[in-house]
Amino acid sequence: MDKIPASQRALDIEYAIRDIVLPARKLEEEGHKIYKLNIGDPNAYDFDTPEHIKNAYINAIKNAKNGYSASEGVSETLDAIVKKHSTEGVALNKKDIVITTGVTEALHLVFGASFNSGDELLIPGPSYPPYTTYCKFYGATPVSYRTIEEENWQPDIDDIRKKITKKTKAIALISPNNPTGAIYSRKTLQAILDTVGEHKHMYVMSDEIYDKMAYGVQFNSPAAINKDIPMIIFNGISKIYLAPGWRIGYLAIRDQSGALSDIKDGILKQARARLCANAPAQHAFTEALNGPQDHIKEVLRILKERRDYCVKRINNIDGLHTQIPDGAFYMFPKIGDGKVDDKKFVLDILHHAHVLLVHGSGFCQTYGKGHFRLVFLPPIDTLEKAFDSIEKYMKTIGKF
Amino acid sequence: MDKIPASQRALDIEYAIRDIVLPARKLEEEGHKIYKLNIGDPNAYDFDTPEHIKNAYINAIKNAKNGYSASEGVSETLDAIVKKHSTEGVALNKKDIVITTGVTEALHLVFGASFNSGDELLIPGPSYPPYTTYCKFYGATPVSYRTIEEENWQPDIDDIRKKITKKTKAIALISPNNPTGAIYSRKTLQAILDTVGEHKHMYVMSDEIYDKMAYGVQFNSPAAINKDIPMIIFNGISKIYLAPGWRIGYLAIRDQSGALSDIKDGILKQARARLCANAPAQHAFTEALNGPQDHIKEVLRILKERRDYCVKRINNIDGLHTQIPDGAFYMFPKIGDGKVDDKKFVLDILHHAHVLLVHGSGFCQTYGKGHFRLVFLPPIDTLEKAFDSIEKYMKTIGKF
Repeated sequence: MDKIPASQRALDIEYAIRDIVLPARKLEEEGHKIYKLNIGDPNAYDFDTPEHIKNAYINAIKNAKNGYSASEGVSETLDAIVKKHSTEGVALNKKDIVITTGVTEALHLVFGASFNSGDELLIPGPSYPPYTTYCKFYGATPVSYRTIEEENWQPDIDDIRKKITKKTKAIALISPNNPTGAIYSRKTLQAILDTVGEHKHMYVMSDEIYDKMAYGVQFNSPAAINKDIPMIIFNGISKIYLAPGWRIGYLAIRDQSGALSDIKDGILKQARARLCANAPAQHAFTEALNGPQDHIKEVLRILKERRDYCVKRINNIDGLHTQIPDGAFYMFPKIGDGKVDDKKFVLDILHHAHVLLVHGSGFCQTYGKGHFRLVFLPPIDTLEKAFDSIEKYMKTIGKF
Repeated sequence: MDKIPASQRALDIEYAIRDIVLPARKLEEEGHKIYKLNIGDPNAYDFDTPEHIKNAYINAIKNAKNGYSASEGVSETLDAIVKKHSTEGVALNKKDIVITTGVTEALHLVFGASFNSGDELLIPGPSYPPYTTYCKFYGATPVSYRTIEEENWQPDIDDIRKKITKKTKAIALISPNNPTGAIYSRKTLQAILDTVGEHKHMYVMSDEIYDKMAYGVQFNSPAAINKDIPMIIFNGISKIYLAPGWRIGYLAIRDQSGALSDIKDGILKQARARLCANAPAQHAFTEALNGPQDHIKEVLRILKERRDYCVKRINNIDGLHTQIPDGAFYMFPKIGDGKVDDKKFVLDILHHAHVLLVHGSGFCQTYGKGHFRLVFLPPIDTLEKAFDSIEKYMKTIGKF
């Protein structure tokens, strides 16, 4: 039988990470132990959701919160989100928030409501792959702006200025950043927002999913720095509350002027058609936001220790160099002079050192190549074995 | 400030049901008690998820199943889905299944991977609104085929034959049907599948979410009737397992010939980009499928009683007439001669009788008008009050 053709948008989806995961699975099936430094999932290592948040989830299930919620989300959870941002200097209205199945669904709703064919979205280079994937999926063009490795991956404001066109519909700010761990400075954000403010045809997407994962450096929400520019904020339960598998995120529209009112209407119509996010998990998110935050300090202490260990090991290996990430749980080391074929390097490390990394060009063809992303979530004894193995292999191949 | 324009696809989303829900909310805010016969959510009435399924969910949360699952789904849950269909005469491969955030997400993945602009999808008229909404969202054209009221809403095979064109990419079969409650007979399905089999450029979508909700009539899975035609089956935990708020559905590709291999690839790429469905809820679904099914008999007994009560009351009201639905928990009565403005009727019933129904044209402009959808989930004392109120109001306006 002939094939029934897929849509062009589906054929166009690039999924670089799969090129690495499939050979890794094959090695595992052959009986090899693979050290996985590739997954941004704290619960895949030695973290678990705090008990009080689990208990809130369990109570919601026991107490019959098992039907649909309102499409926008559970009312108390929306209140908790408003309160969280209010304490951080950002005023939101609960009617401007939609609770979603992770930030990925929030991106779908926002991109689906925003982009016509030909629109452009400015994204940090490198950045989290769904920004590129979903942008193209909805017919728009992702345009990567440079982030400066030597300045710990801060956005290059001159490059942003050059790349804003009449077609630019929005700029995505991802701080703390995946995959670089950069936290954008207040000064840099101020400069970006001043520039965006000059262009009335565009808005800001602020991805704050790693907001509380900062190691001694202050996280700044763009919405607290500039009160006028229309903005859509993304966040959720996955990272600092250690529950990525619950798939609870949200989008919050901060729009004093009404510039985003049609886009908001499009978001809400999509949200209603898909019914709602998981209802009992939303009640757990209420508790995560309103309940004790005591676990955060300990999580950050552990992660900082693992980060420091990784930085030390990497910078001691000839041919590798990393900046020190101030946030999230990623680092983005340079291989040799940064002109190396990063995908080949990562596949070599996989096959010879049995360590799974992700090649940098999977995060940006322009500003990611010659690098790899490493997740510093695993316990130090796992990291030690992984780095011993990488170091041993790299000695055999000589310096880049 | 000028508005930043929304995408055309967002502006085009029709959401008829909102036109009814907003005035209902307004009446409630004014202090009126509204009898809601509009929500397909058993848990909004006097049903709750069976204890053993809740306990499986709770145990998954306690036992640290809180990280991401594989994008395709939890392995044991995929096995349970394969087993369920195997006992029903349908052979599936677990690698051809993706567990999704409800059937709505499954529709997104399948439509997103299938439809180019200009493609056509045959859908039953009337049918569940996301089929129309998502079809247009992805640039394709929904084409309604007639279902015959006098034959208890069975599909009109001649109409289907007439409406298949070179652009027809798929036909959706929704049995038991929302909003009519029809269960398609084996003979009708056989005729439809024979017709589809003559056209190698199209496949079948079989929405089986109400499969176990049948009142003395046999549900037939199209995949058990025809083993050759490429098919994508939709199902999930929401309805017979009474957990719609958990948002766990799935899509299963049954494709012996490989005709759907590119579409499958597009589905899987989208599935990976959005990470996974709620992980602990998938473990609950394993238990739902593999564990005791004892509650089903009692649920069906209660629902049949409520169905019979509604049928009796409706057919005793001058100007209303309903077929007897064999499945699901909906009925789709005709108003007068079927030429009445159904939206006006439903708004009148809302304002004067304080009963919330959904107008039939919201399910199909052609084959739904002059009707309304009623959910027969509420307890009989609620239904009694609602029908007393409808009956009283209809006496004041005289016969249609």
